[in-house]
Amino acid sequence: MNYIKHFRIGVVLLICVAFLMLSAGAVFAQANPKSSPERLVMPTEKLQKGFEKWVGLEKGSGPWADYYKPVPLHMYWSPKNHYIRPDVSAFKNLFEDYASGDCMGCHDEVTPGIVRSWRDSAHAKPRRTPEIAEKTRAIEEKAGITIEQVTCNFCHGESHDELFMPVADDVCKQCHRQQVVEFASEIADGRPSHQASWISNVVVPWYIEGFRKGEQYSFIGCDQCHPAMEKCDACHTRHKFSSEEARKPEACFSCHMGADHPDAETYQESKMGVIYEMEGETWALDKGLNDVELGGSEMRSPTCQTCHMYNNTTGKWGHNVTSKGRWRMGTFPPKQVEYKSSMKDYPYGITIPPMDKKIDLYDGPNNKKLERWVELCSNCHSGRFARLWFEALDGYMFAAYRKRDEAQLLVEECFDKGWIDVNARDPYPMGDVIADKLGVKLLGEGVYKAFKTTGGKVPVVGPILGVYANFRHDGGNPSAIEVEYGNMWFWYALKGYKGVAHGQQDYAWWWGWAPMVNQLSRIRSQHDMLERVYNIEKKLGIGLGGGK
Amino acid sequence: MNYIKHFRIGVVLLICVAFLMLSAGAVFAQANPKSSPERLVMPTEKLQKGFEKWVGLEKGSGPWADYYKPVPLHMYWSPKNHYIRPDVSAFKNLFEDYASGDCMGCHDEVTPGIVRSWRDSAHAKPRRTPEIAEKTRAIEEKAGITIEQVTCNFCHGESHDELFMPVADDVCKQCHRQQVVEFASEIADGRPSHQASWISNVVVPWYIEGFRKGEQYSFIGCDQCHPAMEKCDACHTRHKFSSEEARKPEACFSCHMGADHPDAETYQESKMGVIYEMEGETWALDKGLNDVELGGSEMRSPTCQTCHMYNNTTGKWGHNVTSKGRWRMGTFPPKQVEYKSSMKDYPYGITIPPMDKKIDLYDGPNNKKLERWVELCSNCHSGRFARLWFEALDGYMFAAYRKRDEAQLLVEECFDKGWIDVNARDPYPMGDVIADKLGVKLLGEGVYKAFKTTGGKVPVVGPILGVYANFRHDGGNPSAIEVEYGNMWFWYALKGYKGVAHGQQDYAWWWGWAPMVNQLSRIRSQHDMLERVYNIEKKLGIGLGGGK
Amino acid sequence: MNYIKHFRIGVVLLICVAFLMLSAGAVFAQANPKSSPERLVMPTEKLQKGFEKWVGLEKGSGPWADYYKPVPLHMYWSPKNHYIRPDVSAFKNLFEDYASGDCMGCHDEVTPGIVRSWRDSAHAKPRRTPEIAEKTRAIEEKAGITIEQVTCNFCHGESHDELFMPVADDVCKQCHRQQVVEFASEIADGRPSHQASWISNVVVPWYIEGFRKGEQYSFIGCDQCHPAMEKCDACHTRHKFSSEEARKPEACFSCHMGADHPDAETYQESKMGVIYEMEGETWALDKGLNDVELGGSEMRSPTCQTCHMYNNTTGKWGHNVTSKGRWRMGTFPPKQVEYKSSMKDYPYGITIPPMDKKIDLYDGPNNKKLERWVELCSNCHSGRFARLWFEALDGYMFAAYRKRDEAQLLVEECFDKGWIDVNARDPYPMGDVIADKLGVKLLGEGVYKAFKTTGGKVPVVGPILGVYANFRHDGGNPSAIEVEYGNMWFWYALKGYKGVAHGQQDYAWWWGWAPMVNQLSRIRSQHDMLERVYNIEKKLGIGLGGGK
Repeated sequence: MNYIKHFRIGVVLLICVAFLMLSAGAVFAQANPKSSPERLVMPTEKLQKGFEKWVGLEKGSGPWADYYKPVPLHMYWSPKNHYIRPDVSAFKNLFEDYASGDCMGCHDEVTPGIVRSWRDSAHAKPRRTPEIAEKTRAIEEKAGITIEQVTCNFCHGESHDELFMPVADDVCKQCHRQQVVEFASEIADGRPSHQASWISNVVVPWYIEGFRKGEQYSFIGCDQCHPAMEKCDACHTRHKFSSEEARKPEACFSCHMGADHPDAETYQESKMGVIYEMEGETWALDKGLNDVELGGSEMRSPTCQTCHMYNNTTGKWGHNVTSKGRWRMGTFPPKQVEYKSSMKDYPYGITIPPMDKKIDLYDGPNNKKLERWVELCSNCHSGRFARLWFEALDGYMFAAYRKRDEAQLLVEECFDKGWIDVNARDPYPMGDVIADKLGVKLLGEGVYKAFKTTGGKVPVVGPILGVYANFRHDGGNPSAIEVEYGNMWFWYALKGYKGVAHGQQDYAWWWGWAPMVNQLSRIRSQHDMLERVYNIEKKLGIGLGGGK
Repeated sequence: MNYIKHFRIGVVLLICVAFLMLSAGAVFAQANPKSSPERLVMPTEKLQKGFEKWVGLEKGSGPWADYYKPVPLHMYWSPKNHYIRPDVSAFKNLFEDYASGDCMGCHDEVTPGIVRSWRDSAHAKPRRTPEIAEKTRAIEEKAGITIEQVTCNFCHGESHDELFMPVADDVCKQCHRQQVVEFASEIADGRPSHQASWISNVVVPWYIEGFRKGEQYSFIGCDQCHPAMEKCDACHTRHKFSSEEARKPEACFSCHMGADHPDAETYQESKMGVIYEMEGETWALDKGLNDVELGGSEMRSPTCQTCHMYNNTTGKWGHNVTSKGRWRMGTFPPKQVEYKSSMKDYPYGITIPPMDKKIDLYDGPNNKKLERWVELCSNCHSGRFARLWFEALDGYMFAAYRKRDEAQLLVEECFDKGWIDVNARDPYPMGDVIADKLGVKLLGEGVYKAFKTTGGKVPVVGPILGVYANFRHDGGNPSAIEVEYGNMWFWYALKGYKGVAHGQQDYAWWWGWAPMVNQLSRIRSQHDMLERVYNIEKKLGIGLGGGK
Repeated sequence: MNYIKHFRIGVVLLICVAFLMLSAGAVFAQANPKSSPERLVMPTEKLQKGFEKWVGLEKGSGPWADYYKPVPLHMYWSPKNHYIRPDVSAFKNLFEDYASGDCMGCHDEVTPGIVRSWRDSAHAKPRRTPEIAEKTRAIEEKAGITIEQVTCNFCHGESHDELFMPVADDVCKQCHRQQVVEFASEIADGRPSHQASWISNVVVPWYIEGFRKGEQYSFIGCDQCHPAMEKCDACHTRHKFSSEEARKPEACFSCHMGADHPDAETYQESKMGVIYEMEGETWALDKGLNDVELGGSEMRSPTCQTCHMYNNTTGKWGHNVTSKGRWRMGTFPPKQVEYKSSMKDYPYGITIPPMDKKIDLYDGPNNKKLERWVELCSNCHSGRFARLWFEALDGYMFAAYRKRDEAQLLVEECFDKGWIDVNARDPYPMGDVIADKLGVKLLGEGVYKAFKTTGGKVPVVGPILGVYANFRHDGGNPSAIEVEYGNMWFWYALKGYKGVAHGQQDYAWWWGWAPMVNQLSRIRSQHDMLERVYNIEKKLGIGLGGGK
């Protein structure tokens, strides 16, 4: 016991040393994970290449290489790119007493929770029920291996010298290949997808600008969720890795909530979620969705998984949750709306992937998705009701786009008339280098020229690239009216969208439509005041209006 | 099995056809529900008449008939008014194989969840416990019927040609008469009531204006909750219709939450709700409230139902939840406050029902309600404590009304002095026709004349009719200062009200009082700026101040 | 039964009488609780003295004595200071039928819930399990008493003439001494502490100003939580007083949530909280934390208690929750940031306790706390990960302070340049008397002189004393720009802080960093507009800029 106590204190001290070395920039050996012939999940070969090209890995490369250096925590969020092994040289003598695979000898003491959590897993007891035993048998057969227990070394390497952080492609796929393949199939559905979320997080100019300005830790909110999908443990939390846990809507909640995607809130407060809250504990969550009787005592109302994992292609439930996506997070303007603001030109000739293009809600693929939705909803609702709900969702979204279009027109007028002075404020994030770094091919000729000639002092309003108004304020940029407009997207339109989609009236109205029209009032009043003061100054020959 | 699969696909296709016909305006047979000699719940005879007079049914009538046409989804929310039978002519051959009442033969396949949910209901097993058997026996005796099972046809009609959507008055009342009668008794308590909520939702000018402007789907948030009370399944969700479920506070949560009535939030986060969250699962929710021992292991803290279903008249628990209402949603100014703004004249001579009149908190009926509350609270608190709490609630409300009065005075000054130009913006919702459509009798002479002479270009600030600031923005109306004031009501005062009433301190303070005074600061600063810029323009002879 | 019914109505009537007497200012006998040689919890001898000196007790004393008189409800929140016995003279005859300790004879009828709740307590059944019996035995031994049952009289006095409201120091400590001593030890950790929370609530000038203005009930939100800690029943709710209940995170939630300390929200929506939500019901919450196996089936993820009750000094779990506090609620600026605004001078020479001084995050005691945190986190995480998380938290906080510093500089410029006119608006809360009442010794020479010469018409921006912007608006003070700045603290920076600390990304970003930079945009735009209009007026010789 005494030995243990001293050992424990020793660990703390050693970790301090390790940390100091890390802070001092000491070079650690790179992780050398098991080689993997194909990369499906994240980063795929293609995405990995894009990632290197844009933001670089730990050594830095691509256009942002001079500005972006991952913070140490990134090693846990994107281990494939950034993991470095801890320095455990101080434990050398200790290791002489333990066999290389005898991890639990120490970890029962230094990280007991991890070991205990694993002990409750199917990894520790791969035959604890007949069903699990059968799954284990099938895995053994397919993978051509024999499984006694899935111990630490299977996922983390044989020793501290080989230690690595497992990801879906390296490790999980070896036994759970079908699940990983299904999950990886999301990438083919276009953005958004779980796989592309890390790259989307880090390549955008406002993220890089934050790093350049020394505010890299401001992004810890973004950084926590966006990379989660390189690994499987965002849903099947470590080290229990429970299927039943991942079947609960709570598994989705910790990421899918908040201003931009209030899925948790809108589901929980919908009648579907309320019924889950009241009855969910008695449901058959030990069964896979393909085996559950929907609508009855096994699952009287749907979970996130029930609806979103029902696959458009197969008509069965699987590990792809994007296959029936129609509105694509609600940030791509639909073709079905006639725009008056510059949103009509979206995406302005830009060819950077996240910009993509306007959505046609009623093209062939989207119509097929709609049919699949109606088929799904018909488990518990009349098909007519389901269809009318989607009509209402689309109608709501079109109206919400028209409101934003009206607001964008007002903001754009402020720039067109010179009521907001872009020259008196800081440029667009990374605007001073963006033209040179990204080039005419990606930016399109118009945007490239605008950035090149102004050094980034261009107004950017609207979806995707205008989102920076929610991310930064640098020397007067953005101004209040731009912020109010930006919030129409990320606080209100997206909340309303999910409110209607999930049948949650409060989000549809009080967090959706109502504040959207409130923002329009605020934008209009600010617009009018900017005009009036400008005209006064013009008359007096002073200030902005007076050309001073 | 193959047959079933094809049948299923067939259903989907047929629903598509039905939908297209619906969209194209094809005329369907009207539902022909069982005749009902008396209408208690919604719409009552009287309310139904008002409904027709104001907004029309599907055929259109009343002052708003030219502008309001229900969207198809309304057929599910107000079936009594709007339900149309689906076109199932394509299933003709299929129907030959099934007896008219043999619904489950198909619905086990096309909507299996509905059937499964019903199978778990007392309707499917009306003698599954001795208690339920006894209730069934009593129903049989009173209604003079014999109950084997309550099957689909009992509530929905004998065949698809007779299909209708059941409401409390048509169907539920036949067996559960006492509950429906109690529920219907709310209407006598005045507004708000569950029964009047649908009409309140649809008759207001800003709702009609939304329909006129083609934004009918923006109201899907409002539309989901307001009509729910025509049927019983908002609380006893279909098709299980469980009493135990309806006894849980969650049954109330899906409607009673959000900006205007954060009942769910304030209860859940009060100590009462926290105790329910921690212990509720072990409580005797299978028992009716008249049989439960409050405060002990059967129900250690109150649910929504415990407090609000305790009837002012009977001193017992029943299906009326409005009988002890004192503050009436907090939107009717109390007589106990001395107002400086035009709120002193509320309701301005208007005789439209929702306007009603100022509340006298301490008149005879309200004093009796208070005593009933203290009696109720005394189950678990000292009577003195309960009484002091109501004193605090009233004190908080009076103070909150004074803050709003102060703010309203500032906004009204902006109009009085011409700092806001009502002529340069769109009129009040439906303002161009409101005088003619509603007439002098309802609007009162002052309001009628104001609308008539200005075409609706009048400022409307304050409770009830001023709420449009949370609903619309049309061509500069309302302006920001009006929105900030409107939010004092619907976002903050009402949150604070429920925070204090339910003993939830965060809503009382941080969502109530704090943002109310914050709004006052914003309103004052906008007021000052509008004045200053106006005065400058006046001096210069330009813009609004210069009379241009 | 009939007797009971009449008795019940009688109680209601009598309570009315009692209440009227109370309202009329009738003097009641003061409670005479059991004498207690030492006062540990609240108010300690020292705090009690401060309390008298500052705000007075019911009789009034100290600088604020003329303005602050506790509302009657305060008797339940701070019984040590304010409790008065109810007038029960009307029950005189009744009492003749009951022995002085036979409380339940009546209370089974008048407050049945209290009695039932007690019946489920260990107080009623002090040997209901072997574990509880053993604890009872140990208490008997230490306290030198024999426990049959802990009945009403033990905590509330022998009769209504002696009735008092028990607090930790009077009553709980007699049997649960260790817990009370541990809890009381918080006071040594400095602010914030549970013990100082009541005094912090009531001494601040804006609270007193509310009382002076007749808005005393506006504070019911604050008043509910701040005093709770004089008694133990905020966590171990009465009259069950369950240890298991107090071990659940929900026990903390009802106070620790909302704008200033969103602990509940950030925990619940973190992965730790999500796992508790999914699995917590099966955990060993009947065991004390020193006996629980963390990380496994007994407690797979931490509760509030797991982390915050792990004591810095002892390395064991106990009833002090502040011993490892590093950021002290996030309202004390850290030394590690270089400030440009007047925040660099914080606390401006003021010696009033809550002002304290800047935090040195990396001094000896704070470094020791960090090590204790890493040791704790290492139960379930790698120590390196834990350490990097704290590095990220500190980095986030520093960046958030820099944002507020930037904003404060902008607001201060508005005052420095005269763009906001402090003379045209009401003074700082209690500003007219603050210098005389508090004196130069507490205020420091600079602040004293400022208040003395201006009658309180000084701008106060920034942490602690600037918080009044979230509490009051009196005649133009504060203005909108001050409110927007104040909200950077109480709505956003503190939310972001807890979001990062608890690993909840949505609060870190969407309720933290994003709205902080949004506020900066709003502040900057208002700053610019104030400048422009001032300059225009100056040019025209009118209004504020023209010196009028």
